[in-house]
Amino acid sequence: MATIKFQANSPYTQAKQIAHPSDYRHEQYLVNAGLSRRKVKHDIEVASHLQVINVALFALGRAGSIHLGNIMKNPRLNLKYLVEPSVEKLERVAREWRLPPSALLTPDQQGVVFGDEELHGVVIATPTHLHRDLVTKALKAGKAVLCEKPIAEEMESAKHCYEIAQKTGKPLICAFNRRFDPSFCQLQKEVQAGAIGQVHLVKTVARDSPLPSIEYLKQSGGIFHDCAVHDIDLICWVMGEYPVEVYGAASSFIPEVRDIGDHDTVAFTMRFSSGALSMTDLSRNAVYGYDQRLEAFGPKGMLSAHNERPYQIRRATEAGDTEPPILHSFPSRYYEGYVRELDHFCDVVQGLDDNLLSGENTLRVSIIASALDESVKTGQAVKVTY
Amino acid sequence: MATIKFQANSPYTQAKQIAHPSDYRHEQYLVNAGLSRRKVKHDIEVASHLQVINVALFALGRAGSIHLGNIMKNPRLNLKYLVEPSVEKLERVAREWRLPPSALLTPDQQGVVFGDEELHGVVIATPTHLHRDLVTKALKAGKAVLCEKPIAEEMESAKHCYEIAQKTGKPLICAFNRRFDPSFCQLQKEVQAGAIGQVHLVKTVARDSPLPSIEYLKQSGGIFHDCAVHDIDLICWVMGEYPVEVYGAASSFIPEVRDIGDHDTVAFTMRFSSGALSMTDLSRNAVYGYDQRLEAFGPKGMLSAHNERPYQIRRATEAGDTEPPILHSFPSRYYEGYVRELDHFCDVVQGLDDNLLSGENTLRVSIIASALDESVKTGQAVKVTY
Amino acid sequence: MATIKFQANSPYTQAKQIAHPSDYRHEQYLVNAGLSRRKVKHDIEVASHLQVINVALFALGRAGSIHLGNIMKNPRLNLKYLVEPSVEKLERVAREWRLPPSALLTPDQQGVVFGDEELHGVVIATPTHLHRDLVTKALKAGKAVLCEKPIAEEMESAKHCYEIAQKTGKPLICAFNRRFDPSFCQLQKEVQAGAIGQVHLVKTVARDSPLPSIEYLKQSGGIFHDCAVHDIDLICWVMGEYPVEVYGAASSFIPEVRDIGDHDTVAFTMRFSSGALSMTDLSRNAVYGYDQRLEAFGPKGMLSAHNERPYQIRRATEAGDTEPPILHSFPSRYYEGYVRELDHFCDVVQGLDDNLLSGENTLRVSIIASALDESVKTGQAVKVTY
Amino acid sequence: MATIKFQANSPYTQAKQIAHPSDYRHEQYLVNAGLSRRKVKHDIEVASHLQVINVALFALGRAGSIHLGNIMKNPRLNLKYLVEPSVEKLERVAREWRLPPSALLTPDQQGVVFGDEELHGVVIATPTHLHRDLVTKALKAGKAVLCEKPIAEEMESAKHCYEIAQKTGKPLICAFNRRFDPSFCQLQKEVQAGAIGQVHLVKTVARDSPLPSIEYLKQSGGIFHDCAVHDIDLICWVMGEYPVEVYGAASSFIPEVRDIGDHDTVAFTMRFSSGALSMTDLSRNAVYGYDQRLEAFGPKGMLSAHNERPYQIRRATEAGDTEPPILHSFPSRYYEGYVRELDHFCDVVQGLDDNLLSGENTLRVSIIASALDESVKTGQAVKVTY
Repeated sequence: MATIKFQANSPYTQAKQIAHPSDYRHEQYLVNAGLSRRKVKHDIEVASHLQVINVALFALGRAGSIHLGNIMKNPRLNLKYLVEPSVEKLERVAREWRLPPSALLTPDQQGVVFGDEELHGVVIATPTHLHRDLVTKALKAGKAVLCEKPIAEEMESAKHCYEIAQKTGKPLICAFNRRFDPSFCQLQKEVQAGAIGQVHLVKTVARDSPLPSIEYLKQSGGIFHDCAVHDIDLICWVMGEYPVEVYGAASSFIPEVRDIGDHDTVAFTMRFSSGALSMTDLSRNAVYGYDQRLEAFGPKGMLSAHNERPYQIRRATEAGDTEPPILHSFPSRYYEGYVRELDHFCDVVQGLDDNLLSGENTLRVSIIASALDESVKTGQAVKVTY
Repeated sequence: MATIKFQANSPYTQAKQIAHPSDYRHEQYLVNAGLSRRKVKHDIEVASHLQVINVALFALGRAGSIHLGNIMKNPRLNLKYLVEPSVEKLERVAREWRLPPSALLTPDQQGVVFGDEELHGVVIATPTHLHRDLVTKALKAGKAVLCEKPIAEEMESAKHCYEIAQKTGKPLICAFNRRFDPSFCQLQKEVQAGAIGQVHLVKTVARDSPLPSIEYLKQSGGIFHDCAVHDIDLICWVMGEYPVEVYGAASSFIPEVRDIGDHDTVAFTMRFSSGALSMTDLSRNAVYGYDQRLEAFGPKGMLSAHNERPYQIRRATEAGDTEPPILHSFPSRYYEGYVRELDHFCDVVQGLDDNLLSGENTLRVSIIASALDESVKTGQAVKVTY
Repeated sequence: MATIKFQANSPYTQAKQIAHPSDYRHEQYLVNAGLSRRKVKHDIEVASHLQVINVALFALGRAGSIHLGNIMKNPRLNLKYLVEPSVEKLERVAREWRLPPSALLTPDQQGVVFGDEELHGVVIATPTHLHRDLVTKALKAGKAVLCEKPIAEEMESAKHCYEIAQKTGKPLICAFNRRFDPSFCQLQKEVQAGAIGQVHLVKTVARDSPLPSIEYLKQSGGIFHDCAVHDIDLICWVMGEYPVEVYGAASSFIPEVRDIGDHDTVAFTMRFSSGALSMTDLSRNAVYGYDQRLEAFGPKGMLSAHNERPYQIRRATEAGDTEPPILHSFPSRYYEGYVRELDHFCDVVQGLDDNLLSGENTLRVSIIASALDESVKTGQAVKVTY
Repeated sequence: MATIKFQANSPYTQAKQIAHPSDYRHEQYLVNAGLSRRKVKHDIEVASHLQVINVALFALGRAGSIHLGNIMKNPRLNLKYLVEPSVEKLERVAREWRLPPSALLTPDQQGVVFGDEELHGVVIATPTHLHRDLVTKALKAGKAVLCEKPIAEEMESAKHCYEIAQKTGKPLICAFNRRFDPSFCQLQKEVQAGAIGQVHLVKTVARDSPLPSIEYLKQSGGIFHDCAVHDIDLICWVMGEYPVEVYGAASSFIPEVRDIGDHDTVAFTMRFSSGALSMTDLSRNAVYGYDQRLEAFGPKGMLSAHNERPYQIRRATEAGDTEPPILHSFPSRYYEGYVRELDHFCDVVQGLDDNLLSGENTLRVSIIASALDESVKTGQAVKVTY
């Protein structure tokens, strides 16, 4: 029978079609076009002097370069200072972004940053060994801090930094960028809303691409403190609890990695007091791209977050169907995450949101990474105490 | 917060988990294991003498070979006769399937088939020019008929066959195998249940693989009567109506195809009285496999049926992700459709279902194919009258 | 046998792993971090005074809002003027982006724009009836122009605009945003490189979401000039040729659309002199999101570009697997396309690339749209002459 | 430029298009149609008396029902006897498949089976506690044996069975059905051919659906011996080696499962002497279907085998895109695997292939399952010795 039988009223007589909440770019468009207001957790009024947040960025390495572009593209942020030892780099980006000379500082001039009362926050992307000193100075000068992980080389130093943050009442945000990935955020929100019921299992995959240089690996703190911390953080966040016991197995297929006492391949399991389990595998060398997946399983079903590709193209030939590889590395894979991380920083500075990456969490994640390291060394499961 | 807050009652206290209705293999398993009864349209009791249906199969060509295996594997059917001119073929399959000598006939012995009162039906898979004669004889002898398309070379002959079917009260089923494809069936059922509302558009893709031999094409009746009829039939079935106007555009990229006055590439549009439109593209030569797709669009959404692959495997390398090609040709792509077609034949013979492929439909599909042929010749849209 | 037999040399002894060319975000990251140079067609040196391109933006409607953000985020562009009748809008965005008062103009002050010798280009996103006048003035004042489609309401006016562009030697770019979609670009590039051989068929789908207001539709110029032009443009671009004959079928399921003499559902076919065919279907009302697909088929295979989703998340429950809807509408679906469109504008202004959207192409696309309109009115195929 | 520039020679002048090797259904079609010969490992001539293999099937439970249909549909097999205690079941299937009365036996008549010199093999699908006795008798009577896992309740009994098989020279095949899944087979073949280089990691997922009855679980031997053995077997097969150390973590979220001392959720890791690692997670209760996945990772890339769905249908609505759930349970998920398992049995009986599931492998898999059980009990990693 012809489907004219299903004829319905004109769509113009029905409720207006709106975007599905998942389309965050559409929401951004509405906000940008002045057709909607940005949603925030704490809907307080932002005092006018904080409408624009003056920040200083420390260093233009891998993460710093990403932050620079994102700060410049974010209308909520004003880059007041850029602190970088290479004058050549400073000049290049000053030309590109039309920064005034007053914004360009070398590290020896960093006193200007901490002395500027109109500066609201700092973003720290220097080598790790400089973190502690900068974090401490910034907090004491009353600046909010977004700092690349780890907050400090030693656990005790990190604790000290958080104590100062506590005392000064200024936010100290540890930049776990994966927390801001749109897919991971959505998955966590759905799990915490009960979409799969009580969690039975969370799995993550984190395979690095490209293979980091051996120089980088030497000073990375080892695969557990350099890589596994991200997975530990994500899993605990999705679970809403911390593990009571962990077990790790690790191998070194690459001779240069073995020679520096590190591992290139890791499989680890965590057990939580609710009975939930987690499994993660890490690799330093995925040739097909930066493989980052997250899966949560419970009695009501499964939620899984997959990798992204640059194009939505398929090629069909007699040899099969081909899609372009998943994104190559963290700058493209976590492109949106880095953008959102800065927005979270703004929200925290303006009191619109709570610091998602607090001291307690960051310190616990470090403790767990150390327990995994110990498990690999002893070959046995290790109980975790906080 | 830990998800233990979502702890629920034991699944043993809840309703037993059953298979989703889409898992037809699971339903078959339950039926085979005696744990469930097969669902039928008309739930009448089947007289005991019809529990097993005795059939004769005519010819062991491409379609006949497929039917042979499926008849042998279907417990509802008993192959009483196999009529085939090649004695060598007869002997091979007799050995393979342990057929008794009495089942093996050459065409000159076909009188045995029509004279056997215990025979319920025939399956005709001979070359097209023999269809009319066999169909007529079988119907007159009181046998149900499943005949490969077309029922006859000429429209008038086909009409004549259907008139005899009408007179004898015996079913004459034209074997449009795509009607029995599980995905297409499901899509049609959902459209007819209103899943997308009033249909606005139906699209099909039918690209042949491998390229048929030029000998086959010479006697095929042309791309509209050989190929397009399937798409026309599917579209009208999904729509539940027949078109009032059609337009076709066609090209011949392959010189040998052009030389015989046929086309290898076709795009055609049909317009229905409800306002619905359809679009189809055909090709004789898809190197990446037998591409068969169906899409229906309406004010409530879209349903689409995609191609199948032999394995669910992906390979990820630095050059991208690869899946094996879609299935190569009709025997594998419509594997399940052929199995279901025979089951439909059984259902019709036993009065458990209505003949889905009646004369009126088949004749109309031919009329539409002729109108498209005319449209291509004249370069203009053609109104269709039935 | 254990796969240790496949043990290979250390990856450190092999060629360094680089990003697949498809990962354009990674390339952007390298450029932004100063680790690589942006690839351009004409690798000329850009004179220093053109390093930053001063532009004026006309109007803050739907497209204008998108351009505003993208201009502000692009270090190659400096928004010198923003011309918009609503003072409220001007003030809002001035606050948001810290624009100086000198940049804010109402239309009566637009003389400032055309009189500014340091201004390089203008971006026109006003209502259509203002295009002709602004385009003409801008070109005569020696400014490069990026103008939303259509360049003018009448074909003759559009021709006139292009003649002025020709005379002044200034680029006039018609903003066909879909041309800059990363997936479509890649598909076109691969087709033109011979990936599927001689093209036999190109198909596009363009289904609007959300349903536009009837006010918008009234002044839209009709579905062929408002919507189909995009598909015509894409198809001719992929094909590398223009059609010789077209046929369109159209319906109006929505009474309000029928009442204004427009169509909400269209299926059209184009035939090219090479023998290639194209098929497109349009709808004004896809409830599941903004459906934009492109498929090209030839003797070596098929390339297809699919829709995008905001998250890479799947939810598996007993009712099936679910993914979030495809992106809702053009601002999110063509987010990246709009960004790239501006970069193309910069490239053309700086002489690094040729104008991809020239006058000849734009005028031909209009001619084809008119031919389709005529085909629908007459019910017959229409030959196209240019 | 028009793509006519890519015009190539007629496909009729090129090599004939053949099916990609992955399309196993097409290969079956060619074999069935007499157009090709089935590929075998040892291409010996099969003695005429073995062309058809006479078999007896023991019991019509879950697995037995599957085997019955598959035996009847396989032209290489002739079901000579069916041994089943329920006379009602015997009568039902005899009617369905037209079995002669001589084929129907109750267990007390099983002497007929072992005394029949013309019988080549037996398929044993009885409750586990009967396996040992039937296997022993069948082997001693000179019959080939395909037996559902486990071969015997106790390791010592299983060893004894294999010793008899050794002595009698008759094949004893343990029916690890997953080994015959087309996707898993293909993945293993590619890994062993070096597609991903030296294996670094293999992961499997095995989540049961529906939740088995508590009665079944009570006599199942525990989740390690009932479920994990399949994953252990698959992993070792893909790896080509056996683990040296294992670690398991397990939970019981379902009270009834906890009460019988079993687990419903397991995560386990295995470490191999080559340095490779494996990770598996098991659940007894996946509501979204029978989740069975396999992934292998190495320095050259990743191969992954995913779940199957009954239809290739997607539904797009304003709430998102939906696909039907993955297959519900083992009879549909491993439908093809069960068919291939019987073909392997035929191949082994006819000397065309080696027994893929030998005694050494089966016994080692049991040892590993026991080690995992011990690991869960002690909370520590356990070294495995064979």
